Amino acid sequence: MSKSLPKRSEDYSLWYNELVKRAGLAENSPVRGCMVIKPYGYAIWEKMQRILDDMFKKTGHSNAYFPLFIPKSFFSKEANHVEGFAKECAVVTHYRLKNAEDGSGIVVDPDARLEEELIVRPTSETVIWNTYKNWIQSYRDLPLLLNQWANVVRWEMRTRLFLRTSEFLWQEGHTAHATAQEAIAETEQMLGVYAEFAEKYMAVPVVRGVKSPNERFAGALETYCIEAMMQDGKALQAGTSHFLGQNFAKAFDVKFATKEGGLEYVWGTSWGVSTRLMGALIMAHSDDDGLVLPPMLAPIQVVIIPVFFNETQLAQISEKAKQIKQALEVRGISVKFDDRDTQKPGWKFAEYELQGVPVRIAIGARDLENGTAEVARRDTKVKTTYPLENLDAQVADLLNEIQENIYQKAFQFREEHITKVDSYEEFKNVLDTKGGFVLAHWDGTPETEERIKEETKATIRCIALDAEAEEGTCILTGKPSGRRVHFARAY
Amino acid sequence: MSKSLPKRSEDYSLWYNELVKRAGLAENSPVRGCMVIKPYGYAIWEKMQRILDDMFKKTGHSNAYFPLFIPKSFFSKEANHVEGFAKECAVVTHYRLKNAEDGSGIVVDPDARLEEELIVRPTSETVIWNTYKNWIQSYRDLPLLLNQWANVVRWEMRTRLFLRTSEFLWQEGHTAHATAQEAIAETEQMLGVYAEFAEKYMAVPVVRGVKSPNERFAGALETYCIEAMMQDGKALQAGTSHFLGQNFAKAFDVKFATKEGGLEYVWGTSWGVSTRLMGALIMAHSDDDGLVLPPMLAPIQVVIIPVFFNETQLAQISEKAKQIKQALEVRGISVKFDDRDTQKPGWKFAEYELQGVPVRIAIGARDLENGTAEVARRDTKVKTTYPLENLDAQVADLLNEIQENIYQKAFQFREEHITKVDSYEEFKNVLDTKGGFVLAHWDGTPETEERIKEETKATIRCIALDAEAEEGTCILTGKPSGRRVHFARAY
Repeated sequence: MSKSLPKRSEDYSLWYNELVKRAGLAENSPVRGCMVIKPYGYAIWEKMQRILDDMFKKTGHSNAYFPLFIPKSFFSKEANHVEGFAKECAVVTHYRLKNAEDGSGIVVDPDARLEEELIVRPTSETVIWNTYKNWIQSYRDLPLLLNQWANVVRWEMRTRLFLRTSEFLWQEGHTAHATAQEAIAETEQMLGVYAEFAEKYMAVPVVRGVKSPNERFAGALETYCIEAMMQDGKALQAGTSHFLGQNFAKAFDVKFATKEGGLEYVWGTSWGVSTRLMGALIMAHSDDDGLVLPPMLAPIQVVIIPVFFNETQLAQISEKAKQIKQALEVRGISVKFDDRDTQKPGWKFAEYELQGVPVRIAIGARDLENGTAEVARRDTKVKTTYPLENLDAQVADLLNEIQENIYQKAFQFREEHITKVDSYEEFKNVLDTKGGFVLAHWDGTPETEERIKEETKATIRCIALDAEAEEGTCILTGKPSGRRVHFARAY
Repeated sequence: MSKSLPKRSEDYSLWYNELVKRAGLAENSPVRGCMVIKPYGYAIWEKMQRILDDMFKKTGHSNAYFPLFIPKSFFSKEANHVEGFAKECAVVTHYRLKNAEDGSGIVVDPDARLEEELIVRPTSETVIWNTYKNWIQSYRDLPLLLNQWANVVRWEMRTRLFLRTSEFLWQEGHTAHATAQEAIAETEQMLGVYAEFAEKYMAVPVVRGVKSPNERFAGALETYCIEAMMQDGKALQAGTSHFLGQNFAKAFDVKFATKEGGLEYVWGTSWGVSTRLMGALIMAHSDDDGLVLPPMLAPIQVVIIPVFFNETQLAQISEKAKQIKQALEVRGISVKFDDRDTQKPGWKFAEYELQGVPVRIAIGARDLENGTAEVARRDTKVKTTYPLENLDAQVADLLNEIQENIYQKAFQFREEHITKVDSYEEFKNVLDTKGGFVLAHWDGTPETEERIKEETKATIRCIALDAEAEEGTCILTGKPSGRRVHFARAY
């Protein structure tokens, strides 16, 4: 076990970076802004992927794959989209290298310049709607419900592991519909899928809402989002679902013959979550000793550690441990039995705490005599002596309890960090002292939102779907407002 | 059903291209050389991925993710590697676009030129070994057994869907070991995994062998491969596994402290299969009516089609069909019940033949009266009337039988297309008339291999691992040879 982590209370940002590296989740790569996702981090991402993919398929979606490269001209076809995405991006200009004439290595071959530059996809609406044009002729071809798991690149100047990287992994759903109503229903359905995933699996409570026009996806008529609260009081956008209207259908001329014999533009949606979810997962639950993982996403749910002083003891404990492991695995629980003799039990305890393994079972020679084991929860650090008999059933229950407890803890924290304010002074004060979501009245204009952002670094995270109608006045301008919106400083 | 496919006997190449498009597997994209993998094609690829991934994990490997971009200078560090991979590639030179001053659209911002160009990975040895340098210090860190699922780009001038595309999807395993022996054992183990996957799941028999030096992976000491035979008598390399020696460890200075206290370079392997496997699967089994899929990789294993003349009949048949569907699904069989009334049964029969669904169950009103159903096999086209009672068990057996039959058919074809020849005349004659693998003696020199390739377009596909020692003389030079090698024209 290396030296202890920085404390959250002292330097939250440093704590996060160190935790990500030391727990074996990710690290920076030699390529600016790109990360290496390490095996343990990738194992969590794989679990997320598998669960989300099943949810997408249950809601009728299929996967497909579209090209990594997008011709530059495609971006110019949707006016807002180009402003949002085609500026800070990786541009492929050449397709060949050659040996330098002076023998100094390899250089770009100037004769191999592409006629049209290719953009490494920052998002795939353009190339996908260009394809949909050929796939959609009639209402019989609709709805078209596709998803893609892919890497995307957005050239970020300031990057942080998982939270903001130049290359990241994500899924992007792209659907096409015959009516606006159906497309909106799809947009809302997928927001629901994301919210359910965040709350049920990640144990992260989220606010469901819509973005203000300033924060809308470039090319969308409406952007729905889920917003989570981190332990430092900053918000994190965890997923978005966009109602695209007919914008991309018009940009790429995608029309369909209606049942009634007419010809209309297709209605579209797109929706995505990314490896950013890893950042949310880590920051929502972890503590100064390391990761705290909800059991449903933990690659190792239970670790069994033998406490022994000689080979004979180890052999006896191992026999029992393997029985326990097998009984747990029959229940679908993933178990690691760490019988290495190169590390002491105390070192292992700390290591698996760092890695956020939800349940640790320690078995010593005396435990065997007594027919017991010491079971430690990662979330509360409580240790309990359990009888070996029926241990698998008890651990299965405990995992459910931990999942629920982690969610409840995050939920309480979130609830304690929602503050209603009615003046700009109070607004700034809450942001500076307590953070969290600040519910305030806003006059609905982009100018006011922009000025508040400049002065306080807080943005409107969303207008909650369940926001109640309430007469009030904008905290900045005093103009009338019909409901409060969620402000916060955010990742 | 659109017009029928071209025939294999008339234009094999056109047959393949049309089949890939019409069966909904893939199509060309607007980006030169890049394909769109359509939902049905992607569903097959997902099945392949899932099975392979499980096999990798069972043999102790974990997944991770490394950057898409590789700094140009990395390639120069391994002399052979740069020649093999860094030439025809996608080069990122800029990271920003801007609005053209004349308002004509967006252009590359000349002020945003990268200091060092980035190459879109054609394969990841360099960026991964650069990372391994930080991960490996001691023998305790070894072996390191990682795999990555990713997209890669090799700028191909002549492309064909799945078989050769500029961007393709693949997995690349990269392992590090303490000894040469262990690395060679890993290389051979993964070749075994690929061979088992090809034969057991894809139903494609393969020759296991090693490449001649000419055909070796750029940077490897030895390249193992599996070679399959297509229906037009051409070979297809279906997977490779490379023993890298210490080449990349030396290029990236990756050393480890041995148990004995020394400091040594690490031994490496890499191995990969790609969406090219889709091409092999399609070309190995399909016929003039469409795809023939082995049940183990078919997204839809059984389709049930009702044959009805009115709503009442449809309702009665549907009730029975849903029972059958459920009984099959309990057995883990994927079933589609196509009760659309917009298409006639005959149209549906042809459509699912095109898509290669292994078993079709047709149920009409008379079948219901008789308590029977008509079951048609896609592989042999044989139709049989089965009693409805116990139908699920019979269909489950039938799927196994089809899987085995498809393999046996491909195996027999392959066996009939292996010819031993002892003269260059005979060699050329067999290639031109019959194709297939031609087993011939070769003097072991790159020059001879090159000349044979130039004159006949045939290459040494591999030196089979089970090749028997046999004295002979090279078909071209008459020089002595100790065993026959597998020549073929290839994809």
